[in-house]
Amino acid sequence: MATANKQRGNSEKRRRILEGALRAFAKKGFYNTKVSEIASEAGVADGTIYLYFKNKDDLLISLFEDRMEWIIERLKGELDRIEGDAAARLRAFIQLHFLLVVENRDLAEFVTVELRQSAKFVKEYDNPKFSDYLRILHQLIKDGQQEGLLRAELDSRLAARAIFGALDEVLLQLTLSKAGPEDVEEKAALVSDMLLRGLASD
Amino acid sequence: MATANKQRGNSEKRRRILEGALRAFAKKGFYNTKVSEIASEAGVADGTIYLYFKNKDDLLISLFEDRMEWIIERLKGELDRIEGDAAARLRAFIQLHFLLVVENRDLAEFVTVELRQSAKFVKEYDNPKFSDYLRILHQLIKDGQQEGLLRAELDSRLAARAIFGALDEVLLQLTLSKAGPEDVEEKAALVSDMLLRGLASD
Repeated sequence: MATANKQRGNSEKRRRILEGALRAFAKKGFYNTKVSEIASEAGVADGTIYLYFKNKDDLLISLFEDRMEWIIERLKGELDRIEGDAAARLRAFIQLHFLLVVENRDLAEFVTVELRQSAKFVKEYDNPKFSDYLRILHQLIKDGQQEGLLRAELDSRLAARAIFGALDEVLLQLTLSKAGPEDVEEKAALVSDMLLRGLASD
Repeated sequence: MATANKQRGNSEKRRRILEGALRAFAKKGFYNTKVSEIASEAGVADGTIYLYFKNKDDLLISLFEDRMEWIIERLKGELDRIEGDAAARLRAFIQLHFLLVVENRDLAEFVTVELRQSAKFVKEYDNPKFSDYLRILHQLIKDGQQEGLLRAELDSRLAARAIFGALDEVLLQLTLSKAGPEDVEEKAALVSDMLLRGLASD
């Protein structure tokens, strides 16, 4: 019982540090943020951070994994609720990706701007959570191919990468220009339309 | 005459520093490279670098501008030689973008990996050379719309961004996996096919 409480306390502290890091990175950028500033955002002592994370790079990667897990859970939950063919689900996936990122400015700044700055992260791009994300996209494309809606000769893995790149770049621009929700929704519809036409069978 | 020679000498030294920086960044990454290592790659004294560049960020941006200028000149030259409609030229643009980046490993590493790491660069993304690049892509899409080949209701500016994002992401993956030239050519054909279908009028 005491152990369970302690574990819960630990995981709450870990969560507070991750949330503090997200806010701190969004304010000053990854490279300009000191660990002590993260501690202050999180309301913990400087040394506490090192009980949970090896260093700032480790914090960045953990934060990415944590946020991707959240995004992936939301994406999966929504996809399960959608009745319709793979094309409709792929469209929903793209639109939800836009909305999830833009709903939360700090997250948007983090995913599109800050993550690009960690050499370690970009080189170790086969991050397991990022792979999970790509796998969902990849599976949707394969489903569409099996249903005969998307071209069978498509390289589904390559298409998933290209789609992620297109979404990420457009989201980067929308984030930097501080686009409002209607604008984001409109752009999401245009981009998903363009990408789906690109994959559709004749 | 003496001045002209001096200017030529200056611009040659600047070029040597930029090339040294490209090699150094490709080896150790932007953040891990010391200015003294760039000087050593370029065969100049450490202090000489500061005669031409304010700091490492300035060097990164100058290198990007220099390389983009080179890419843009090659792209424009090729586009001028292509006889065919806007769709054919857009396809050629995409394939050439792939080939130019992959032809030169250091450049590929620099453009797809290193550039993502400079906070300054990503936030000041309206870099004039990058805008030139986007403008060519944007113009090709507008030409295609006027020729009736591409859908008139497309947001051509948004489409240019999405295409750049897709290319950049696929190139990042090809660079990190050290893909060979045939593989790159095949992927370029698949990606350009997918993107063009996405833009095509019904």
